[in-house]
Amino acid sequence: MTPYAAPVRDFRFVLEELLEHGSLTLPGFEEASPDLVEAVLEEAAKLAGDVWAPLNASGDRQGCTRGQDGSVSVPDGFIEAYQAYVEGGWNGIGVSEALGGQGLPEVVASSVQEMLHGANMSLGLCPMLTAGAIEALAHHGSEEQKATYLPKLVEGTWTGTMNLTEPQAGSDLSKVRTRAVPCPKGEGDYYRLSGQKIYITWGEHDAAENILHLVLARTPDAPEGNKGISLFLVPKYLVDDDGSLGERNDVTCASIEHKLGIHGSPTCTLSFGENAGAIGYLVGEQGRGLNHMFTMMNEARHKVGVQGIGVAERACQHAFAYALDRVQGRRPPHRGGGECAISDHLDVRRMLLSMRARTDALRALALYCAAQLDVARHAAEEGEREAAQARAEVLIPVVKAFSTDQAVEIASLGVQVHGGMGFIEETGAAQLLRDARIAPIYEGTNGIQALDLAGRKLQRDGGRALGGLIDEVEGTARALCAAPRLAPLGEALAAGAADLTAALAVLLEQGSDHERGPDAIQAYATPFLSLAGHVLCAWQMGRSALAATAARQAGSQDPFYATKLQSADFVLRQWLPEGRAQRAVIEAGMESLVAFEPGAHQV
Amino acid sequence: MTPYAAPVRDFRFVLEELLEHGSLTLPGFEEASPDLVEAVLEEAAKLAGDVWAPLNASGDRQGCTRGQDGSVSVPDGFIEAYQAYVEGGWNGIGVSEALGGQGLPEVVASSVQEMLHGANMSLGLCPMLTAGAIEALAHHGSEEQKATYLPKLVEGTWTGTMNLTEPQAGSDLSKVRTRAVPCPKGEGDYYRLSGQKIYITWGEHDAAENILHLVLARTPDAPEGNKGISLFLVPKYLVDDDGSLGERNDVTCASIEHKLGIHGSPTCTLSFGENAGAIGYLVGEQGRGLNHMFTMMNEARHKVGVQGIGVAERACQHAFAYALDRVQGRRPPHRGGGECAISDHLDVRRMLLSMRARTDALRALALYCAAQLDVARHAAEEGEREAAQARAEVLIPVVKAFSTDQAVEIASLGVQVHGGMGFIEETGAAQLLRDARIAPIYEGTNGIQALDLAGRKLQRDGGRALGGLIDEVEGTARALCAAPRLAPLGEALAAGAADLTAALAVLLEQGSDHERGPDAIQAYATPFLSLAGHVLCAWQMGRSALAATAARQAGSQDPFYATKLQSADFVLRQWLPEGRAQRAVIEAGMESLVAFEPGAHQV
Repeated sequence: MTPYAAPVRDFRFVLEELLEHGSLTLPGFEEASPDLVEAVLEEAAKLAGDVWAPLNASGDRQGCTRGQDGSVSVPDGFIEAYQAYVEGGWNGIGVSEALGGQGLPEVVASSVQEMLHGANMSLGLCPMLTAGAIEALAHHGSEEQKATYLPKLVEGTWTGTMNLTEPQAGSDLSKVRTRAVPCPKGEGDYYRLSGQKIYITWGEHDAAENILHLVLARTPDAPEGNKGISLFLVPKYLVDDDGSLGERNDVTCASIEHKLGIHGSPTCTLSFGENAGAIGYLVGEQGRGLNHMFTMMNEARHKVGVQGIGVAERACQHAFAYALDRVQGRRPPHRGGGECAISDHLDVRRMLLSMRARTDALRALALYCAAQLDVARHAAEEGEREAAQARAEVLIPVVKAFSTDQAVEIASLGVQVHGGMGFIEETGAAQLLRDARIAPIYEGTNGIQALDLAGRKLQRDGGRALGGLIDEVEGTARALCAAPRLAPLGEALAAGAADLTAALAVLLEQGSDHERGPDAIQAYATPFLSLAGHVLCAWQMGRSALAATAARQAGSQDPFYATKLQSADFVLRQWLPEGRAQRAVIEAGMESLVAFEPGAHQV
Repeated sequence: MTPYAAPVRDFRFVLEELLEHGSLTLPGFEEASPDLVEAVLEEAAKLAGDVWAPLNASGDRQGCTRGQDGSVSVPDGFIEAYQAYVEGGWNGIGVSEALGGQGLPEVVASSVQEMLHGANMSLGLCPMLTAGAIEALAHHGSEEQKATYLPKLVEGTWTGTMNLTEPQAGSDLSKVRTRAVPCPKGEGDYYRLSGQKIYITWGEHDAAENILHLVLARTPDAPEGNKGISLFLVPKYLVDDDGSLGERNDVTCASIEHKLGIHGSPTCTLSFGENAGAIGYLVGEQGRGLNHMFTMMNEARHKVGVQGIGVAERACQHAFAYALDRVQGRRPPHRGGGECAISDHLDVRRMLLSMRARTDALRALALYCAAQLDVARHAAEEGEREAAQARAEVLIPVVKAFSTDQAVEIASLGVQVHGGMGFIEETGAAQLLRDARIAPIYEGTNGIQALDLAGRKLQRDGGRALGGLIDEVEGTARALCAAPRLAPLGEALAAGAADLTAALAVLLEQGSDHERGPDAIQAYATPFLSLAGHVLCAWQMGRSALAATAARQAGSQDPFYATKLQSADFVLRQWLPEGRAQRAVIEAGMESLVAFEPGAHQV
């Protein structure tokens, strides 16, 4: 497998020139000087490239193993690599200082996350889940819970898990059956949990001292449906009053899954309460478990999008290295003739540029979204915070779903660039496709993301937040039209913005219909998200083209800017048209889907 | 894994109503009565569903094993399943009666092939390669070679392989280095081969008595490049004069590949001449090996396209069965409310209909192409034969590349329909994606197919054959516009035809430029093939809509026709727009690709 080199230059371009250090100058980020940020990116790049990336292929081959006692061993080297991450203080970089973290901006934390996932997605999942547990406890835990658990989670010496899914409760969590019974009065302030959870990422492993499971369960006499579900903290080892580890709790790994990819990440079925019942502590309010879980879900979804971009970046690097090295065929005479690397054939170049340009675009959008999260938390003005939060909430399902769908396509194109070699596992390109394929599924399928966008997020404010973004897209289009040599990009972007505006109007009008609204949202959600993803990514690349042009006009000779202009040109003129086709799909209406009876189509 | 049920009803619809028994009435097919064809399809469906399909998942899990002596064992049950195929006489159904086959039309043989690949793609590869060897010997072998080898190949008791690729010679076969040295005069009419071939499908196995390797090699003093390459027949066991098997030849399996998919198909590295040199016999003319190989390549490519459709069909069946069974969420009140299967959610329906409609469309186009092959071989009039051959040659790269690219997408969508289950290997959906992923790579990558179409096939006749097809597309569009309720489909198809016409004009004009033509062909080939694939598939679905409407008007109550109209509506109004976007991609020009330097984009 080609070594991984974190794209530090591109992170710096986005942070410094596209976001213009926006997040870094917010109140609370005084210490995040450009120099510090640069140093953080460089150090993270070393950890990712030197420590995590070399274990990616071996971790895939070896996978995880479950012992007969329910213990789970992660692949060789993973414990040490995770330890290096913990010792470097990386787990807390995005956590606020009040909770013991470094409190760096989300744009920086997201950049580091992308590097780690690009280096080793299976290992990257462990801290991703811990981050969710930190969020849940920080927002909803009692002071005592925070004091007991947060420091270890923030350090990373303990890890966290999210226990949502059960066999009958996947996308529809109202069907959760795991039970939590309060212990008899006077015996303590805890519950006994029993039930089975599936698809628990890093649910059991040997890389940390303790594991804190956050579990959705139903209390006795709780109402049916969502309102009967509460959130519980179930530690693998109970924690004594002095903070030391006590008894083993009644939660065991019943099995680990045999999966298409991310073999280095143990995906567990967890059994709670096979004996006395697993001891669990209520987090937040009874009956508000789903709400509490969804507080952190938004950020977890952003992280999955970023993860997809990390894998896409690695697929790019892999494919470029192969294509530049593999000699096959001849260059046409007018370009010098002679034997050449396959990267000289324009058909291969199309694949490479498509991979690179899309990855650049997805990254710029994901970091723009991260910057909105920073503003939403740290801006001085409440109005500014609220506006940024509204934008982030619209952008997050796009970042999650669009980045991960594209990551699968980019990884698949990476396989194709390798020809026959791409299908051979030892090459490494196939692993990236296998790994990438989970990201459109977990943390809410991409269909669920599309419904979140087209339903909840757009309907509740009548498309106002997205409308504000489209205004900005149009502004960028005008700026491109006014710039020398960028007018064709501006025209393309303006056309994309017009399509998105038209599709939004259809979605708002039909989606608000009292009777047929839910169907309309379901019918248009996926094409709408794809259209929005294309247009918003194209917007960011339009901004990139303007920034690159400005840098060149200011005298920069850095060849990076030429590559950025090439990516922008491809995104706006050769990739955006594919997204624009989704307007026609939406305008074709929903009748064909309503009339469609899948049972009649079965063979 | 969901059982496989061959889509016999749809094969019959295409054969009887779309092709109107076209091939079946050609001279030479007198015995292929509709009744016989129906019986053949029903019997093939049983073999595929009852014998081959149940081994698909177990074959994937077990894979092939190579012994230390270089022998290769295929998965349990494969030998018996192949034997059942041979004993049923299936290997010869598409082979002419003169060569000992049944001489059934290609449309029927292709239908049977799709079933077998849908049931078990790994096993299906074995006879696919044998068919190539039959073609090669039938067209280019000496009378003695035909007499010695063809009967066993046609029976299937011996199998064939294609030995093209070497580590330095993939898409560019002019780099073949395997050597073939004529034996000293008077010692016999054979050569001694030495060298190594890679990626040899079913290159060694224990499912047949003998294996006949067709090998590209270079004779001493042969010129550099393509013209120095000849084709040789190298049997695993030499054949004595009485037809019995003699000595083991000097060809061994050095290793088998560890692949992303098709684990049940042994992909071998073959070493020729590690000892005395492998005995091989020249097939056809010295120096014409590549030409001889390409004679059969066209048909092999059609078969790979059909293979993709088979896997797509199985992915459909798998996804439909899951979606109809999996209860999750609730139906909207105006459609009855209550708990429902996920197939009731319109977003899931979109995925299912997209899978089904595209599979239907790809099948109709592949069988239309097969019918052209039948006409090209059997029509009474030479002009008719030539016109059909020209059409088939234009269609084959489309069928190969477009069907296999789409098959990967369809299989990936199948994974998505399953949610978390899709990522678990035991479910079976992931295997279909892994298996499908090879088809865009082998038998000429899809990039090579696009170049074949945009370069050789379109440039040599100035787009005449494709232009004839576009005329037919326009005719179908007019017929749709004139039919009640189908006008929107007709308008969509007409717009697609206009885009294809415009793109063809760009390709012909820029492609014929003396200097920059080769670059233009490279730059536009892939988007052009995608556009052509969408438009031609949409054409077939437009024809399907007309046929279904006619059947209903004639009083049929068969619900099949309603499903066909739904597939057609989706293809024309919701899928074709995505393909039409490729016109804009082509009109964006080639400058961005020419200017693009992949080396500058490396991190």
